[in-house]
Amino acid sequence: MKKYKVAILGATGAVGREMMKILAERSFPVEELHLLASERSAGQKIQWQGQELTVEPACDEAFRGLDIVLGAAENDIAKRFAPAIVKAGAVFVDNSSAFRLDPDVPLVIPEINPEDAKKHKGIIANPNCTTIVSLVAINALNQDSPIESIVASSYQATSGAGAGGPIELMNEVEALREGKSYEPKVFQYQIAYNVIPQIGGEAFEGYTSEEMKMQNEGRKIMHLPELKVSCTCVRVPVVRSHSVSIVVRTKEKISVERARELIAAAPGCRLVDDLKNKKYPMPLDTSDQDTVFVGRIRDDLTSDNGLNIWCCGDQVRKGAATNAVQIAQLLTE
Amino acid sequence: MKKYKVAILGATGAVGREMMKILAERSFPVEELHLLASERSAGQKIQWQGQELTVEPACDEAFRGLDIVLGAAENDIAKRFAPAIVKAGAVFVDNSSAFRLDPDVPLVIPEINPEDAKKHKGIIANPNCTTIVSLVAINALNQDSPIESIVASSYQATSGAGAGGPIELMNEVEALREGKSYEPKVFQYQIAYNVIPQIGGEAFEGYTSEEMKMQNEGRKIMHLPELKVSCTCVRVPVVRSHSVSIVVRTKEKISVERARELIAAAPGCRLVDDLKNKKYPMPLDTSDQDTVFVGRIRDDLTSDNGLNIWCCGDQVRKGAATNAVQIAQLLTE
Repeated sequence: MKKYKVAILGATGAVGREMMKILAERSFPVEELHLLASERSAGQKIQWQGQELTVEPACDEAFRGLDIVLGAAENDIAKRFAPAIVKAGAVFVDNSSAFRLDPDVPLVIPEINPEDAKKHKGIIANPNCTTIVSLVAINALNQDSPIESIVASSYQATSGAGAGGPIELMNEVEALREGKSYEPKVFQYQIAYNVIPQIGGEAFEGYTSEEMKMQNEGRKIMHLPELKVSCTCVRVPVVRSHSVSIVVRTKEKISVERARELIAAAPGCRLVDDLKNKKYPMPLDTSDQDTVFVGRIRDDLTSDNGLNIWCCGDQVRKGAATNAVQIAQLLTE
Repeated sequence: MKKYKVAILGATGAVGREMMKILAERSFPVEELHLLASERSAGQKIQWQGQELTVEPACDEAFRGLDIVLGAAENDIAKRFAPAIVKAGAVFVDNSSAFRLDPDVPLVIPEINPEDAKKHKGIIANPNCTTIVSLVAINALNQDSPIESIVASSYQATSGAGAGGPIELMNEVEALREGKSYEPKVFQYQIAYNVIPQIGGEAFEGYTSEEMKMQNEGRKIMHLPELKVSCTCVRVPVVRSHSVSIVVRTKEKISVERARELIAAAPGCRLVDDLKNKKYPMPLDTSDQDTVFVGRIRDDLTSDNGLNIWCCGDQVRKGAATNAVQIAQLLTE
C-alpha cells in the first residue's frame, strides 16, 4: 500500500493536535509526518505513534517532497503558504476559510460531495465547523427533496475559538468563584454563565461572517445555488460540541417518519430522537466523536414543507480535523 | 388613594420573593401583605418594607377579605385555591399555566393587551416567561403589519426552573472542579458546560409543553388566532435572563430601519443593536431588570417578509413577577 508524506501546518493548535490523533486513529498510511508551526513553537517535541517528532518552522522550503499538507492555521498563514505547497506538488487540505469560496477550490464534506475532491488543482478546502455539523445532519433530506431554505440558531462551544476558548471559560469560572475580576481576551465578553450572540465580524447586512458561512458554503457543498439560509450564531459556555436548532424547508414535504429513516441511514449521522425517554443530542454526549447526532425531529409548524431538527457534533473533530483527514483519505483512494 | 389587601401565594419561591421586591419597588398601594405558602414554610419570618411578616399556611380561609392574590405557585396549587380566591371576592393574578388558555381567563402582557385585564371574572393569567420576553420584543412590529409566523430558538436560564436551578448549576461546577460526581435533580442531565434541548414534557407531535406555549399563548395575547410558531426551547448554563433567537414574518415587509424605530419606541423594550461596536443583548447585561433588550435586527434571508431578531429579558422579573405586579397595577387604575 502506498504511504504518504504528510505535514500538518499549524500543528500545535487545537485542530492541529486533533489531526495528529485522527491520522493515527484512522491508520492513515503515513510515511513521514511533519509538524509545522510558527518559529515560536519550533523545536517542541511531540509524541506520535511511538515516535518523538520535532516541530519544524513553517517556511516555503518545508513543503518539498510532501504529498499532503493538512492546514490547521489561520487564513493569513494559509494564504501565505498555499503557493509554495501547490508548487511543491502537495495537495493542501485547508481548514481556514481563505479558499472556501474560490471557484477553483473544491469545498468538501466527504459524506456529501466526495466527488468534488477529485477536481482539485492543489487545494481542497474544509468547510466551517457549524456548517459541517448542520449539513451532515440534514443532507439525507436533500436526497429525497431539494432543500430550499434553512433557519438556524447555533449554540457554539468555546473550543470553536481554539484551545484558548475553554481555558478562558474555566479561568472566568475560577475568578468568579473567588470574587476576582477576569478580563476576557478570547471572547468579546465574559462567556461563563452568559451567551454571546456574535461570532465573527459583520459581513453582510447585519449578519456576521460566521452566520453567512452556512449559506455561502452550503450552496457550494450541496450544489444548491439558490439555497437560502438565515443563521444566528451564538457562543455558549460549553467546552466542546456545537449544537444547532434548524428549521429546514424542502421542495416537497418530507414526513417526520421518513426524515427519521433517512437520517438514521445517513453516513456520519446517528439518530437520537426519543423525547418521551429524554433522548436527544447534547454537547456532553457528543464530544470527542466523529458522529453528528440528530434528534427532536418534528414538523415545522410555520410552513407546509418544513422540519424542525436539533443536532450536535464535535466541531474540533467532525467540524474540522476529522473532516480534513477524511478528505485526505479520499485522495488516497 | 385606595390601598389593597394583597397576598402572594407561593411566597417563599423564587418568583414569590421577587414579587415582594417588585411590589415595594413599584410602591404598589399595599394595605396588608400576606405571605402564603405550604405548611412546611409557614412560620418563617420575612422582612419587607421595614416590617417582619410571618409566612402563613395557604388554606381556603386565608383569602377572606383580600383584594388581590398574586399566584407564584405550581399549577396544582393554583387550581386547588382558585375557587376559594374567587369566592372570597379577590382577583387572582396567577403565574402558573393552569388557567392561561381558559376562555374565561384573560392572559395579559400589560405592554400588549392591557384592555383584556378588564374582562376578568376573578382570574387573570400571567403568560409563560419565554413568551413574555419574545412578544414584548416583537409586538411593535405587529402594530405595523400583522405577525404571521415566528421561528424561535431559546437559550433559557437555569433560574427559569425555580430557585433550585442556579443552585444545581453551581453545585455541578463545584463537583466537577473537585472531580466528584453530582446527581442532577432539577434538570434532566448535567447543565454545567452543557445545553439541554428539552423544557417540559411532550405536548404536541414532538413539541414540548414549553415550546407550544409561544403559539398557544401568543395567539390569545396578540389576538392573532392564526399565528404559527415553531419553537425549540433549550436550557443553557446561565443563571438568569432568557435569550431568544427569532425569525418573525409579517403580512407586509417591515424594513430593518423601521423595525429598529418601532422597537426603540415600544414600551418595555430597549434597542441595543450595534454589531460593529459589539453591542447586543446578553443575559449578563439584562438580569435583574424589567426591560426586554432587543438587537441583531436584520432581514430574514429565507423569506420576503421576515426579520431576524435577538432578544434577552430577565424571566424571573419581566417574565414572571414584574408582569404579574403590572397586571395588579392595571386593576388599581
